[in-house]
Amino acid sequence: MASYMDVHSGFFGVTEEQLREAHERDQAIERDEGVHFVRAWLDPVSGKVFCLSTGPSRDAVMRIHERAGHPTAEVYELPVEVA
Amino acid sequence: MASYMDVHSGFFGVTEEQLREAHERDQAIERDEGVHFVRAWLDPVSGKVFCLSTGPSRDAVMRIHERAGHPTAEVYELPVEVA
Repeated sequence: MASYMDVHSGFFGVTEEQLREAHERDQAIERDEGVHFVRAWLDPVSGKVFCLSTGPSRDAVMRIHERAGHPTAEVYELPVEVA
Repeated sequence: MASYMDVHSGFFGVTEEQLREAHERDQAIERDEGVHFVRAWLDPVSGKVFCLSTGPSRDAVMRIHERAGHPTAEVYELPVEVA
């Protein structure tokens, strides 16, 4: 199981409720691909969303996001994490 | 206190030890600006680093990264977070 960060653009002015709804659309189907969406952060000014997940592959993460209606090609695998 | 995600590019082939060393350089001086670097993730293939922090302003985060030797202009304020 690997960790991933994906980046979405164009979410200008999105509210917390709208982000939560989008995140829950991912989580509702994530098990189909063995993915788990852990957390999502939004900057409504720049329109960026960062989404941290775990799963078997980049493609699996991308398929869930695509089915949930917010596809992105920017998915980075993160083998290294420090705190 | 706000949360921030910053993105660094060009970290191709960087190791966990090198990322930890860079992260610790930030943490060693973060108090000077009231910033805390919480976590950093690396994709050594694309050369991307994502760094989650808290602090008083984007500029404060940028100043610490610059003094630590890895400046970036890509710092996003994250008023919204869902899990």
